[in-house]
Amino acid sequence: MNVHDLPTPALVIDVDLLQHNLATMAVAHPGAALRPHVKAHKCTALAAAQHEQGHHSFTCATVAEVVGMAAAGLGSDLLLANEVLHPQRLAALAAVQDVALVTIAVDSPETVDAAAAAGLQHVLVDVNVGLPRCGCRPEEAGHIADLARGRGLTVRGVMGYEGHLMVMDDHDEQRVKVQQSVDRLLAAHADVGGDIVSAGGTGTYHLHDRVTEVQAGSYALMDTYYARIGTPFVQACYVLGTVISATPKFAVADVGLKAMGMDHGNPSLETLDGQGADVWFLSDEHVTFVPHAGVAAVGDHVHVVPAHIDPTMAMHDVTWLVRGHEVIDRWPIDLRGW
Amino acid sequence: MNVHDLPTPALVIDVDLLQHNLATMAVAHPGAALRPHVKAHKCTALAAAQHEQGHHSFTCATVAEVVGMAAAGLGSDLLLANEVLHPQRLAALAAVQDVALVTIAVDSPETVDAAAAAGLQHVLVDVNVGLPRCGCRPEEAGHIADLARGRGLTVRGVMGYEGHLMVMDDHDEQRVKVQQSVDRLLAAHADVGGDIVSAGGTGTYHLHDRVTEVQAGSYALMDTYYARIGTPFVQACYVLGTVISATPKFAVADVGLKAMGMDHGNPSLETLDGQGADVWFLSDEHVTFVPHAGVAAVGDHVHVVPAHIDPTMAMHDVTWLVRGHEVIDRWPIDLRGW
Repeated sequence: MNVHDLPTPALVIDVDLLQHNLATMAVAHPGAALRPHVKAHKCTALAAAQHEQGHHSFTCATVAEVVGMAAAGLGSDLLLANEVLHPQRLAALAAVQDVALVTIAVDSPETVDAAAAAGLQHVLVDVNVGLPRCGCRPEEAGHIADLARGRGLTVRGVMGYEGHLMVMDDHDEQRVKVQQSVDRLLAAHADVGGDIVSAGGTGTYHLHDRVTEVQAGSYALMDTYYARIGTPFVQACYVLGTVISATPKFAVADVGLKAMGMDHGNPSLETLDGQGADVWFLSDEHVTFVPHAGVAAVGDHVHVVPAHIDPTMAMHDVTWLVRGHEVIDRWPIDLRGW
Repeated sequence: MNVHDLPTPALVIDVDLLQHNLATMAVAHPGAALRPHVKAHKCTALAAAQHEQGHHSFTCATVAEVVGMAAAGLGSDLLLANEVLHPQRLAALAAVQDVALVTIAVDSPETVDAAAAAGLQHVLVDVNVGLPRCGCRPEEAGHIADLARGRGLTVRGVMGYEGHLMVMDDHDEQRVKVQQSVDRLLAAHADVGGDIVSAGGTGTYHLHDRVTEVQAGSYALMDTYYARIGTPFVQACYVLGTVISATPKFAVADVGLKAMGMDHGNPSLETLDGQGADVWFLSDEHVTFVPHAGVAAVGDHVHVVPAHIDPTMAMHDVTWLVRGHEVIDRWPIDLRGW
């Protein structure tokens, strides 16, 4: 099938650009030095492509992602890099331990107790390295590890995500601050022990040489938010839309805010002749835009490029793999939900 | 089950508040005077509750919504208030015409041709009444209707959505502008003919007495965006979250931007003791917040109230109906996708 025969809106991945991104990262952080974050794509087929690049351990953000990865046979080392308290969700995690190595983040006595009560076996101590989100203070990490070991849990090490440092205009300042966040993480690790020191993301992957693994996810498909910092990764994903209405002043395509993560602002839009466009606004099922040059006619196709890839993937149930104009595969987005 | 036993994040509807909203609107626009828009909830069970209130015609934004409504036995009069060009999508619409009355919006020769070629039988002429989105100019509407009738299509009337007037602080200005938009629509209707003049939404439902039907959707569940204009409708839906990490300075709950439409900005958050909170930011699976009073402890539940209900519903595959603390039903969100 030709990509232009797809019903729109259609989530499209350029397979050669994806492979470029995967191969580029596999050189920078080969094998176990990268623990790809599946939250960025929620797709076991894409995770399998990362596995083929030599990465056999994965990061997940939800129980559904862990369970889905285990079911897909990709469970050799799954880290749920998030705190979970609900017994039903933890039971679902525990149930896949016979086919997968499951490790869950803990950052408090309550999360340690919940993990132990559910019969989970492995934990990582989540350390706050500056982002106001989950993670204990570095000086608490040893105590959390002691609590976990006291409950019979294996403590595999520490993680600390410096999400607040991913996109910074001043690269020198970014380098200094990432070093400081790693200092905090290593201080915690000295008290915790274990083999794993896990940190980083697509915005800081090039600044990490003192951790055992990097958790990058967005690098595989990219978005306009990460693109502005300048990386070797290229935009491999867009949503194909059709112009369904046009006037001399503006045009409307069928890619709305239910097909596009909006927390990082409007997407970018390109017409097929390579023109950019001013995006006026998105409605549930529409984007209103004005091409920078030329006019858009009813029936024309456009590429809508997300500002944030992670929630965009989560809005679709399938993605189409293309090489040139040919559709070569269809991958379910099978790790959605919780 | 008690609502506080639900695994989080959980999309929750207070059934009594929902019924209040449905009954209130059914008084203002009884029966066929309201064509509820299912895009706001994407749930056939909720549409069935609207049907029980006497509304037997519905508005849809996607082919999937029309097909799902027809499959649920709610197809007595389904309007796809959106333009569609792709033959495969139009064929799916045409295929349900044996069990449903399907009417599709057209606003150009191309959309008329596509509808006719697919074997669709009924159209409505979509008229631009000021919102820069779909719809022909009012003075073109008669020509579009002629084209449609020339292709053997039944033209049921006109629609024109004044989405740019839904939320205005100056109510006098809103009233004047809505009257002007209706003037444009009625001018088009004079040229088009047919029984239907369809317009309006939750923000303007009270200003319409010259159209045959109002297309409101958000009134059923509401959101913080519509709440600020002051309506008789109450907030009937929230996402239940659990505090999974807490510090003296902030807390983190498990309701992130993959569970919450973000195009209208951050959601509101309330703790169970009725305190509001400052919402700092949302990540994929987290909201970081500070309660206005007291402290949030690990394990506490919070209510996260969406700024935009429509995309929030589309992110969940199920919603839980509660009365007080009791979970009384589970409704699939079965109209997602395209």
